[in-house]
Amino acid sequence: MVVILKQKAKKEEVVNLIDWIKKQGLDVHVVEGASKTILGLIGDTSKVDEDAVRANDIVENVRRISEPFKAANRKFHPDDTVVEVCGRKIGGGNFQVIAGPCSVESKEQIKEVARDVQASGAGLLRGGAYKPRTSPYAFQGLRAEGIEFLLDAKKETGMPIVTEIMSAAHIELFRDVDIIQVGARNMQNFELLKALGTLNKPILLKRGLANTIEEFLMSAEYIMAGGNENIILCERGIRTFETATRNTLDISAIPLLKQLSHLPVVVDPSHAAGLTSLVEPLSKAAIAAGADGLIIEVHNDPKHALSDGAQSLTPQQFGEVMDSVKRMVEFEGKHF
Amino acid sequence: MVVILKQKAKKEEVVNLIDWIKKQGLDVHVVEGASKTILGLIGDTSKVDEDAVRANDIVENVRRISEPFKAANRKFHPDDTVVEVCGRKIGGGNFQVIAGPCSVESKEQIKEVARDVQASGAGLLRGGAYKPRTSPYAFQGLRAEGIEFLLDAKKETGMPIVTEIMSAAHIELFRDVDIIQVGARNMQNFELLKALGTLNKPILLKRGLANTIEEFLMSAEYIMAGGNENIILCERGIRTFETATRNTLDISAIPLLKQLSHLPVVVDPSHAAGLTSLVEPLSKAAIAAGADGLIIEVHNDPKHALSDGAQSLTPQQFGEVMDSVKRMVEFEGKHF
Amino acid sequence: MVVILKQKAKKEEVVNLIDWIKKQGLDVHVVEGASKTILGLIGDTSKVDEDAVRANDIVENVRRISEPFKAANRKFHPDDTVVEVCGRKIGGGNFQVIAGPCSVESKEQIKEVARDVQASGAGLLRGGAYKPRTSPYAFQGLRAEGIEFLLDAKKETGMPIVTEIMSAAHIELFRDVDIIQVGARNMQNFELLKALGTLNKPILLKRGLANTIEEFLMSAEYIMAGGNENIILCERGIRTFETATRNTLDISAIPLLKQLSHLPVVVDPSHAAGLTSLVEPLSKAAIAAGADGLIIEVHNDPKHALSDGAQSLTPQQFGEVMDSVKRMVEFEGKHF
Amino acid sequence: MVVILKQKAKKEEVVNLIDWIKKQGLDVHVVEGASKTILGLIGDTSKVDEDAVRANDIVENVRRISEPFKAANRKFHPDDTVVEVCGRKIGGGNFQVIAGPCSVESKEQIKEVARDVQASGAGLLRGGAYKPRTSPYAFQGLRAEGIEFLLDAKKETGMPIVTEIMSAAHIELFRDVDIIQVGARNMQNFELLKALGTLNKPILLKRGLANTIEEFLMSAEYIMAGGNENIILCERGIRTFETATRNTLDISAIPLLKQLSHLPVVVDPSHAAGLTSLVEPLSKAAIAAGADGLIIEVHNDPKHALSDGAQSLTPQQFGEVMDSVKRMVEFEGKHF
Repeated sequence: MVVILKQKAKKEEVVNLIDWIKKQGLDVHVVEGASKTILGLIGDTSKVDEDAVRANDIVENVRRISEPFKAANRKFHPDDTVVEVCGRKIGGGNFQVIAGPCSVESKEQIKEVARDVQASGAGLLRGGAYKPRTSPYAFQGLRAEGIEFLLDAKKETGMPIVTEIMSAAHIELFRDVDIIQVGARNMQNFELLKALGTLNKPILLKRGLANTIEEFLMSAEYIMAGGNENIILCERGIRTFETATRNTLDISAIPLLKQLSHLPVVVDPSHAAGLTSLVEPLSKAAIAAGADGLIIEVHNDPKHALSDGAQSLTPQQFGEVMDSVKRMVEFEGKHF
Repeated sequence: MVVILKQKAKKEEVVNLIDWIKKQGLDVHVVEGASKTILGLIGDTSKVDEDAVRANDIVENVRRISEPFKAANRKFHPDDTVVEVCGRKIGGGNFQVIAGPCSVESKEQIKEVARDVQASGAGLLRGGAYKPRTSPYAFQGLRAEGIEFLLDAKKETGMPIVTEIMSAAHIELFRDVDIIQVGARNMQNFELLKALGTLNKPILLKRGLANTIEEFLMSAEYIMAGGNENIILCERGIRTFETATRNTLDISAIPLLKQLSHLPVVVDPSHAAGLTSLVEPLSKAAIAAGADGLIIEVHNDPKHALSDGAQSLTPQQFGEVMDSVKRMVEFEGKHF
Repeated sequence: MVVILKQKAKKEEVVNLIDWIKKQGLDVHVVEGASKTILGLIGDTSKVDEDAVRANDIVENVRRISEPFKAANRKFHPDDTVVEVCGRKIGGGNFQVIAGPCSVESKEQIKEVARDVQASGAGLLRGGAYKPRTSPYAFQGLRAEGIEFLLDAKKETGMPIVTEIMSAAHIELFRDVDIIQVGARNMQNFELLKALGTLNKPILLKRGLANTIEEFLMSAEYIMAGGNENIILCERGIRTFETATRNTLDISAIPLLKQLSHLPVVVDPSHAAGLTSLVEPLSKAAIAAGADGLIIEVHNDPKHALSDGAQSLTPQQFGEVMDSVKRMVEFEGKHF
Repeated sequence: MVVILKQKAKKEEVVNLIDWIKKQGLDVHVVEGASKTILGLIGDTSKVDEDAVRANDIVENVRRISEPFKAANRKFHPDDTVVEVCGRKIGGGNFQVIAGPCSVESKEQIKEVARDVQASGAGLLRGGAYKPRTSPYAFQGLRAEGIEFLLDAKKETGMPIVTEIMSAAHIELFRDVDIIQVGARNMQNFELLKALGTLNKPILLKRGLANTIEEFLMSAEYIMAGGNENIILCERGIRTFETATRNTLDISAIPLLKQLSHLPVVVDPSHAAGLTSLVEPLSKAAIAAGADGLIIEVHNDPKHALSDGAQSLTPQQFGEVMDSVKRMVEFEGKHF
């Protein structure tokens, strides 16, 4: 950590600041420049509160040099983490496609979609039971009943299920869910993250709409700090000025996350673009950039979908996308 | 609502779509253009699911013409809402300053700050008991004990208190809190919003980092749909490419929110800029743009603050800012 | 084009507006809704000035339904445009890699890089003679002499050259340049675009830092409206809140541009990320998403580069990237 | 400047780097941390090329500590610059309103608007002769004839004129223009900036759509480096994800620019919001935040304006805004 002092800093104030830093177990090197003085902090700075340092009257700025995350950091865990659920592996060369409708609408619907996507090669079934909707007047999901329907579909097909949690109060209802998804809007719902950290169950953590890669990894760190290290990171597009697509898929996030962290990375091309015609090219691009999996929306009757129909594929379209996906996964030397 | 059809739409498909829309209780006018056909939907479209319409194969795009919020909409409630708490009014010409530290750190600290900010003219006391922090290793707040300390400070000074909630599970602990704050990261924590909708207590709702004005009002609508209409909207800066300030204060949001909604609007200049030197000019600008109040961070010892010290004012600096604020409020014809 | 009227619009005013629109050669259909009236404009609306319509007192909003670009529009030119220069083709299944240093620094340097990148499979040579630099104190390029050195390198290797123009006043100096590049900062330098429209020479048009896909295509339209239809579009990253990469590569822009337009699309992974370690994964992703070419920075001595060294590959690194690129191009069924 | 080295850096490489830096006339202090080594560069680093340093294999990152601008920097010129033209002063407590139509459309139009805005208190007349339009099919301005009409209006009213230049090739036509405006899209048209640096005439420099405050000041530095120090900075809104307003007025830029630089700052509330109803509140907010002037669009017949009618005020609306503006300017202790 580098602390840049203001030009007007008095000698006595600088000495006081250095003492205060040293009391936190760090060593300090002073560099006096032509116009400014900087302090180099030496030691484990991951627990130093940048803001507390910055609050000092004589401090102009603080620059962190090491990453503030530890458990999620590849430097300390060079090998890829492989998340395994019901025999399906994600990460370390293992690739999975998670598919299903935005919302679970009925027992028949979810079973039918499950059979369809399984036939095309999807390894896990997704479906929303609790739905985060911008409008209080929009369909909010079947909630507990939706999870029951997902479990029915699992019983029939054997596919492990992935579904989104919106509150720590619902954790008990998710005890049979295979992978719990944290949506983009809850990426910094820290109370929820802490609660999930106490579970022994994989978490699919989606990147927030306007969160940096560092914040994303810090949210994974929240869960891992609680003891749950089974995290799958999910890039799903960020919010920018561009309106031609619903969000802007940050394709660079994939190789960057893989460099910075050992956790597997999956991509959601459906929400990233909000356009069915982009699901195939974005899926291929994600695999080429190093993704460990995809999560794709499929609906057996998109035109009557109760949410997000615009970006859902029909089972037939999904089959065509999967043909491409399989070829690209093989080309990249990964395996299902 | 206007539905734009694809060029390739077949007559039969168009007829089916029109039938389906009519079944939802709406009337449809067809406009056949040179290259495209558009449908004009007539009736109460606030509950029509845009995505369900867009999911139809022959639909190219859907444009909403009326705002999707009702309870928060000034069109249906032309008069300003005035939120009142312990005799302090916000809105409708009434102005309030809410001040206090980012985090409650001790009983003495919060009492001292309370006395200081009250002496300078603040009407309400703020202080974080539950703290949303990016890092799991940063100070997380005194939590329940922090609320106790705030209540002690209230007992001594008579100032109503404002503090942030991070989970619906904590609501019981907030029963004596005067105004419950929802932070930017929880603006779309819909389960929390629903729970707050059942209370009979004012809610200070902060705009999310990357949320549009419409989404902001839809989150207010979530709370109001549950029956709680005591909402104070808070603009606190949005995330943009500019890094010279922590966030970009969206000053235009103030007059726009006042035009679109009857709810009072307060501004947080401390978080918006993240720089103490900008608190005064941004406070003045906010009042000039029509704000009904301010929420300002004040710490009695910013250099040892446990969070967000960089943007906190000392009590003396706050006193100077308040001199400016009072003159500007008076100039604008509002009253404390 | 759909015109949404304000609720308070008087009948007489509406009639006047309709008359004014009809005078511009369009037909108007009126849809009277529950709370609002909308007008559907029928005919060739590409030349109607949205702002002029919006300026009318009774108009609340205007929505364009058809794209405002014609010459660049795939609807009117379904076949891919293939740009050809010195026997190298770009577009329509033909793929090219353009490589070279950010800045031309000396005759020897550019010749050496040219030989190196040609040996690895690059088809065209790039190099900056005129350099847009944020600081007036930074190296501004060798200018006219830089073009001479590029032409020397072309003479020796036979590689066509691509270099950036910064002012219409320099056009005469670019008469022997094979492809003229317009940089991101000049994407809306309309006087320059108009001047380039009168040439009979391919233009590589880079997307601006904060320009939408529609604005990008409108800038291509500027050049095409002047008669020069040899345009290559270049996605090079947009500016967002994320700071881990220099820019955010908008990977979705590739398939979208290919859908909307018949022009070839190349990608600049070097500027998009600003990190050498991302050049390979982003190059592969771009090809997988449908790109027709790449433009990559290569420097024979990056640590002494006079500009943008951080993102330049060494010739050896470039060779390794090219191995990946060639395999991916072949996998996608395209050819050099 | 602080240079952070990679963990793997070898001693010999570090010595070589230090030698190379010292050859550029700087001194280097080495700080060896627990996991990383940093170098503190001492001396005048404003001309050190960050990218050249970053290009070194062993460099992980470079952080600049001093601002890279000199001529525009308040540290070296503590007193406010006052730009004066035909007796009108801007800056240092002097406030001016520049008003007029987006486009000059006819001699009568511009004269009429000039008389109207002068009667309401505007000190300078603006009007676009050369118009940067997104579409090549939109009205491009009257060009040279437009400047003639502006000069006619000046002759009649005595108001100095402000108009936008789009190419250095047109400079001769601007010889009688009082203040030359550089539009947002040309803020980094460096060839144009250099050409304007050789003139002895005030330049109104608008901030680019997606340019940081530092880049904005570096563009001012370009003009100043050429010898022309008469620069007026203009904040006109930046591009963000919010679509309710055309751009997002960055109100914090006003006090920040005033802190960092001695140059006067004016605000364009018309383009910032794109909505006439926001011109008054944003004008007041800008003055409260410390602006030295405003530039406002006024049209005598907005509904038939040839460009940007949606945001133009009628002369009567402008008169009402000016009443507010005058009171606020007086309240702030500034004078016309």
